[in-house]
Amino acid sequence: MVDEAATAVDPAAWTCPAPLVECPTIVMGHGGGGAMSAELVEHLFLPAFAAAGAGGPEDLGDAAVVTVDGARVSFTTDSYVVRPLFFPGGSIGDLAVNGTVNDLAMSGAEPRYLSTAFILEEGTELTDLGRVADALGAAARAAGVRLVTGDTKVVDAGHGDGVYVNTAGIGLVPDGVDIRPARARPGDVVLVSGEIGLHGIAVLSCREGLEFATEVRSDTAPLHGLVGAMLRTGADVHALRDPTRGGLAATLNEIARTARVGIVITERHVPVPEPVLDACSILGLDPFYIANEGKLVAMVAPRDADRVLEAMRARPLGRNAAVIGTVTAEHPGMVVARTGLGASRLVDLPVGEQLPRIC
Amino acid sequence: MVDEAATAVDPAAWTCPAPLVECPTIVMGHGGGGAMSAELVEHLFLPAFAAAGAGGPEDLGDAAVVTVDGARVSFTTDSYVVRPLFFPGGSIGDLAVNGTVNDLAMSGAEPRYLSTAFILEEGTELTDLGRVADALGAAARAAGVRLVTGDTKVVDAGHGDGVYVNTAGIGLVPDGVDIRPARARPGDVVLVSGEIGLHGIAVLSCREGLEFATEVRSDTAPLHGLVGAMLRTGADVHALRDPTRGGLAATLNEIARTARVGIVITERHVPVPEPVLDACSILGLDPFYIANEGKLVAMVAPRDADRVLEAMRARPLGRNAAVIGTVTAEHPGMVVARTGLGASRLVDLPVGEQLPRIC
Repeated sequence: MVDEAATAVDPAAWTCPAPLVECPTIVMGHGGGGAMSAELVEHLFLPAFAAAGAGGPEDLGDAAVVTVDGARVSFTTDSYVVRPLFFPGGSIGDLAVNGTVNDLAMSGAEPRYLSTAFILEEGTELTDLGRVADALGAAARAAGVRLVTGDTKVVDAGHGDGVYVNTAGIGLVPDGVDIRPARARPGDVVLVSGEIGLHGIAVLSCREGLEFATEVRSDTAPLHGLVGAMLRTGADVHALRDPTRGGLAATLNEIARTARVGIVITERHVPVPEPVLDACSILGLDPFYIANEGKLVAMVAPRDADRVLEAMRARPLGRNAAVIGTVTAEHPGMVVARTGLGASRLVDLPVGEQLPRIC
Repeated sequence: MVDEAATAVDPAAWTCPAPLVECPTIVMGHGGGGAMSAELVEHLFLPAFAAAGAGGPEDLGDAAVVTVDGARVSFTTDSYVVRPLFFPGGSIGDLAVNGTVNDLAMSGAEPRYLSTAFILEEGTELTDLGRVADALGAAARAAGVRLVTGDTKVVDAGHGDGVYVNTAGIGLVPDGVDIRPARARPGDVVLVSGEIGLHGIAVLSCREGLEFATEVRSDTAPLHGLVGAMLRTGADVHALRDPTRGGLAATLNEIARTARVGIVITERHVPVPEPVLDACSILGLDPFYIANEGKLVAMVAPRDADRVLEAMRARPLGRNAAVIGTVTAEHPGMVVARTGLGASRLVDLPVGEQLPRIC
């Protein structure tokens, strides 16, 4: 029996429970998936949610695995605010499906059902909304998930940006599957499923009107088929993560911090396509920090790494998969890259937002 | 095996599949929960989602009931864009929990887990966000649900409105429970759990700086405890719905259309508090169209109506419950109110938005 009446909160009573970054207001960096995002979760949301929330930062994967009537259900949510709505290789509709499908897949779940919630700005052209909805439907059909429930809200002109989409998703975690960042351990082999940096550069080039010699297209794609193939090898896959906001650097740092392990990667083993390298060198960006929407990073028991790599390469979305490093007991919580010159550099967690509104 | 590559949609190719209301752009009414909202779903979203979507408008309750590994899981989502963030009796944080809990409860489910996704506007005060998060956590604790997964995005100043919140929720539907609008049938007794119109008038009075003789406070509250008590009587509850956007009128019309039945209510049996009546007469509003956030409408087999009413009245959130009408085989799809003068009037589905951004 719960107390239905005790929800009152004194609106004037909130005080900051811990010193947030010296910043009394929300800045773009709080949405960047880096240190500022993590701080907002750790020092603002988790204390506020208290007993109703997740246990702590270590429980906060991209998806939560909960038990409902004996079934292990993976549950996740993401809002999509990318600008522009359409970009080379995809749209906000594709991201809204594939991003949530991938968060489920990174917990080892088979994605099943998605919700779609739109926040529309007054004055948005119905044709634009129709194109987004078409893309969303096509992506759901391609991924084999059903869009079973939804919501539409409209906000006044000037209080939105055309179309914002939220998708939540539920999937089934098969018996025996236990994949989460905290399970990464020293000795694990670190694999990436393909070339990095495509999504972020595609959106950026489109938004800023930049033209490169080769058009860069977003890699947005659903990864649960690839994960299924990896798991069917019988390998002990410890952790999976899709390196979206904050790129490979943010993802590796999150895993290193959550599992209290160190990670060492070899720079030249990380597949970076030529056009991404070119764009990054022109723009002064580091490809390790650029968002991906159809790639995953895996931490796999060393004895199983070869067959996982082989299974990945046998599939279109994993054909450029590569071993890029190892997990180590040294420097826990830190990610180090071995450079081509034999030196080592620290790959830090990004603080804020390198490329805002990329997803 | 799904086709992972076939997600491409020609961005230029979208054409309107059916004549939408003569309006080439989104207007506030598309978010009002009335005829324009329904048309957007029926003529834009469902055709776009096609095989990946729900079967048709009749499948679109407030929550979808799906099966995951044998478990009957209820799944729902809502975004909350209410202005202001805090109002008499509650806040966007309370709504975000209670609204989603109630959508689950209206399918007969026991609410279990919620996701929270924030779209924050650059420049929002951290103290405001903290107050919203505190309210959200308190409401979740009071409702006995856990906030297990989340997301935060930030949009540039001028492209949001402080804080938008999306919550999705999952719950367990007990064996044998089958509650949905389509099950309403002629002969059913129509009950309402208490006084209507409080939430809409509370938000409106606060937003417009109106003062009435008595302060009107939102009725935001989680209703799953009340639903549980109704079901424990063993009664055959056919349909449940919380009359939020579009009020009692929209809810009764939705049920009448979905179940292809008529509904007759007796005006003077509908409990409307004096301050709501006063406010409505000053503002020229009809209380039947005002949003509620802690009330439900039930369609119950006639032989069970008395004990359901008794069970409702025994609980704080149902103490003013009343029988307000009956379901009939006549005028299917239409809702008729008997007035105090013995006449009948049509209670139509609202077209657009009487009070925008009320939830």
